[in-house]
Amino acid sequence: MYRTHTCGQLRLSDAGTKVTLAGWVQKSRKLGGMTFIDLRDRYGITQLVVEADSPIAEAAASLGREYVIQVEGEVIERASKNAKMPTGEVEIKLSGLKVLNKAATPPFTIEEESDGGEDIRAKYRYLDLRRPPLQKALALRHRLAQEVRTFLDNEGFMEIETPYLIKSTPEGARDFVVPSRMNPGTFYALPQSPQTFKQLLMVSGYDRYFQIVRCFRDEDLRADRQPEFTQIDCEMSFVEQEDVLNTFEGMMRSMFKKALGVEIAPGIPRMSWYDAMDKYGSDKPDIRFGMTINEISDLVKGCGFSVFDASEYVGAIAVDGCAEYTRKQLDELTEWVKRPQVGAKGLVYIKLNADGSVKSSVDKFYSPEQLKAVADKCGAKTGDLVLVLCGPKRKTQGQLGVLRLELGQRLGLRNPQEFAPLWIVDFPLLEWSEEDSRFYAMHHPFTAPKPEHEALFYSDKKEDLEKVCANAYDFVLNGSELGGGSIRIHNADMQSRMFDVLGISKEDAEAKFGFIINAFKFGAPPHGGIAFGFDRVCALFGGQETIRDYIAFPKNNQGRDVMIDSPSKIDDTQMEELFLSSTYTEPCA
Amino acid sequence: MYRTHTCGQLRLSDAGTKVTLAGWVQKSRKLGGMTFIDLRDRYGITQLVVEADSPIAEAAASLGREYVIQVEGEVIERASKNAKMPTGEVEIKLSGLKVLNKAATPPFTIEEESDGGEDIRAKYRYLDLRRPPLQKALALRHRLAQEVRTFLDNEGFMEIETPYLIKSTPEGARDFVVPSRMNPGTFYALPQSPQTFKQLLMVSGYDRYFQIVRCFRDEDLRADRQPEFTQIDCEMSFVEQEDVLNTFEGMMRSMFKKALGVEIAPGIPRMSWYDAMDKYGSDKPDIRFGMTINEISDLVKGCGFSVFDASEYVGAIAVDGCAEYTRKQLDELTEWVKRPQVGAKGLVYIKLNADGSVKSSVDKFYSPEQLKAVADKCGAKTGDLVLVLCGPKRKTQGQLGVLRLELGQRLGLRNPQEFAPLWIVDFPLLEWSEEDSRFYAMHHPFTAPKPEHEALFYSDKKEDLEKVCANAYDFVLNGSELGGGSIRIHNADMQSRMFDVLGISKEDAEAKFGFIINAFKFGAPPHGGIAFGFDRVCALFGGQETIRDYIAFPKNNQGRDVMIDSPSKIDDTQMEELFLSSTYTEPCA
Repeated sequence: MYRTHTCGQLRLSDAGTKVTLAGWVQKSRKLGGMTFIDLRDRYGITQLVVEADSPIAEAAASLGREYVIQVEGEVIERASKNAKMPTGEVEIKLSGLKVLNKAATPPFTIEEESDGGEDIRAKYRYLDLRRPPLQKALALRHRLAQEVRTFLDNEGFMEIETPYLIKSTPEGARDFVVPSRMNPGTFYALPQSPQTFKQLLMVSGYDRYFQIVRCFRDEDLRADRQPEFTQIDCEMSFVEQEDVLNTFEGMMRSMFKKALGVEIAPGIPRMSWYDAMDKYGSDKPDIRFGMTINEISDLVKGCGFSVFDASEYVGAIAVDGCAEYTRKQLDELTEWVKRPQVGAKGLVYIKLNADGSVKSSVDKFYSPEQLKAVADKCGAKTGDLVLVLCGPKRKTQGQLGVLRLELGQRLGLRNPQEFAPLWIVDFPLLEWSEEDSRFYAMHHPFTAPKPEHEALFYSDKKEDLEKVCANAYDFVLNGSELGGGSIRIHNADMQSRMFDVLGISKEDAEAKFGFIINAFKFGAPPHGGIAFGFDRVCALFGGQETIRDYIAFPKNNQGRDVMIDSPSKIDDTQMEELFLSSTYTEPCA
Repeated sequence: MYRTHTCGQLRLSDAGTKVTLAGWVQKSRKLGGMTFIDLRDRYGITQLVVEADSPIAEAAASLGREYVIQVEGEVIERASKNAKMPTGEVEIKLSGLKVLNKAATPPFTIEEESDGGEDIRAKYRYLDLRRPPLQKALALRHRLAQEVRTFLDNEGFMEIETPYLIKSTPEGARDFVVPSRMNPGTFYALPQSPQTFKQLLMVSGYDRYFQIVRCFRDEDLRADRQPEFTQIDCEMSFVEQEDVLNTFEGMMRSMFKKALGVEIAPGIPRMSWYDAMDKYGSDKPDIRFGMTINEISDLVKGCGFSVFDASEYVGAIAVDGCAEYTRKQLDELTEWVKRPQVGAKGLVYIKLNADGSVKSSVDKFYSPEQLKAVADKCGAKTGDLVLVLCGPKRKTQGQLGVLRLELGQRLGLRNPQEFAPLWIVDFPLLEWSEEDSRFYAMHHPFTAPKPEHEALFYSDKKEDLEKVCANAYDFVLNGSELGGGSIRIHNADMQSRMFDVLGISKEDAEAKFGFIINAFKFGAPPHGGIAFGFDRVCALFGGQETIRDYIAFPKNNQGRDVMIDSPSKIDDTQMEELFLSSTYTEPCA
């Protein structure tokens, strides 16, 4: 061992002890002939001191940033203590120093906030990973993974590994595929999730399964999506929705407590998908603050304002204490909602001025009483600002939801250290695609309808099918979906019905899901499960919105790892062995 | 919840309790008008009883094997108790029964020993997984995984996930590759191990890393190899070989204790690679029994037996109590060693008969005293059989090693419930390939030479380089290598030297390992690590030789998953999106 202690370990009580430390030179400075060195490792920073007349004074003075050194010396009490550091009461008076490895000057500073841009830090990810925020992020991830496993192990869940080389089932997102050399002309696929395998494990009687598992999706990458991501994947037999929600409420509360020391009250709130859409314009509402959406169609339609009259839906939110927004601010907000990312046609406002008067951009169509009625509906009080959007119902609610989040952000209502989890339940089972003229499964084709909607599910009418609620649930935290799942179809007939509804032919279903349809014939138990996006769980627990710092080696928005320069060309012999040729022609330079 | 208790839970103390159970019908039988049903789940089997006059008698009588049912009833004391079952003192007198799912008749019996062949069980893996031996195997695997993580977490290791979509580095075995749609003409590779990433994590200062991680190797599959397999992958900074061995001796002892209740004495033995080859003819010796190999060249050469005289090496083993082997048995053994799998030219024997006489197949070349000297060298005593092979040294030792294992097996010396771990150390760093006329790294190109052999490592002479020992170690249990690792090169100059020695050009090294060579310039700490083959760890802990039962969904020897029928063809549109075309032509039928 190159050390007797870590750089985070020594305290005043160790004074007088002879120690050996090893680590990286965080910085070094000369002061009155003495050299002070901050030695860093994962565990902390310890100050080293070399006196002017020491035989190692010259060596100490010539150390560069990020040199790896091993030192010997005695722990002494510091003259000027640093209360901010756990080791701040001591320093090591060095008697020996050995350079274990030199270091070239890093291309950016290895500190809390680096001076390096995103690209250079990505290229030198191994240096960026030395920075304290990333070390903390990965330490949190480690802690959460251990606590998840401990909780689930204690609850009788078995961790069972499912294969990564599986079969392409082009329902949903695109698969990454892997050519098979031993079976020429054929491909494996990388799993988008272990969905079918975990259901087979229930058929096999494993009763409670979990896995922290990598999943793969070849999507055009939106911001903050990764081609490979990690799921906490779980499944249980002989359960109903209530059992799943209770179990994973327990898991989440345990993770908050063990990893963050945060107590989440039992009885995490539940909200129906319809309520979430109506009140928050989102299936993942941020309930850390109010400002909920109110339909005001019946208060404002038929009063001569043609824009509202022509709209399916008119909705509004009350913004606390913002009646004093200036014309300029309101114009800016109007431009903001008209951006293509939001897509509203315009924005109507109602100010409830401090003097009791009401001022609105639609004054000429509505009396102050009518406007006050709108404000009352929204729960607005004197000093508040009411913002109104109109259009098709779900679309407008969505726009109001986005506006709500933006204002929540601007008003500082979205404290990342506050945690407001909830369950969304009672999703529609099916989504109609006008474009493809078919239904898609809102979750996936193995999700069961709610027991009370089974008759509707077997109806031939589109409008009946649209009403069917799924036995499904999402776990939402602070406006992000962290997980989702459902009670599965465990009956072969019902599964066939689902494929029929989704327009998947018997042949296609057989080719893609034949083994699971078949498995269900041999005694499938009632079962259900859930999967959490572990990258996002870590980020949100860490109080961050983006997942990239919570993944040791993430890929960029083009799916590239710029550190290892991947993906890259492979040798011709590899292509030949795989019986593949590329049809791609490089664009002219 | 569909149940109040599991099928393994109820005891005599529960008599009188009203319970609800759910599970699978293991079997049902009628006896004097009553129906007895064995209800099974992961936790055990509980006997149900339905009386002849019960309103559910008819329903109970019509249940098939593997039906999934839910039952209500009262726990009662059994008339005829079954001491072999934890629930054997009670049965449930049913008042209600509901069929949750019917089951087609399984294609083989779901019992301890199935009547199904390997192929049919592979196709219906989800049914085979219901059998007790597989349930036990996966339960052991789960337990071991949790104990590994708990141990390493307590030792300050951080679990850090490394990417699966990485870069092809065709040193060693073949990579599986993954075409990138977003970066046409290029490929990711699936990792053969997270080797470079874990070393980068050490450069990043994470100090102690671990991961239970999937790895991929596109090899022509020998028996009991899988294209995807799982490793316990670990790395530590500021350590020497002694620290790594001590840490992982601790991990292994903890796994034995926690998962099996087996105490392994501290101080797991260590053996040099040279000793292992000389004494056991193997770099993974089974030390549960003796029968070690002895070189007898100097005792038998120059006595006129030209076969020995012409051989580089003559070696022998003493087989306990087998002097009475018949001519037929010895002929069979001779044929056995001459099979191509062993490859010996012939077999010489010396019998130390009970009457004190010596009988050998080479009597005419050697006096009884000379033969006794050979026997003495082997530690043979009256009643033993000495077996002799000759030829090139390492090859002959290997053949003697294989013969030794075979005889150990035949003589019942290889008890799978006995555990004899050891460390193999002091491996050669390099292996010369006559075929390619170059050196290969015996472990991998990041393994450091032993500090005392550094000067040899920089020598230009082949014979010097062959003498260099690696700072490497293998963990061996009962004749299987369970893990291996090394102290790594942490110095950029030494790494370049290694690439030179291996004949990897600067350009190739830069293209394949540029990022890690570069990383080492920024302050790499001394570090080393180890990886264990988790599938094999599980199998050996379970007392089995083959890993397949310890993997939930294994592939067959052609790399196929016959349950999901993978790999398979993919859609033309998928091929087009990936800019790929197949050059494979199906052979004519």
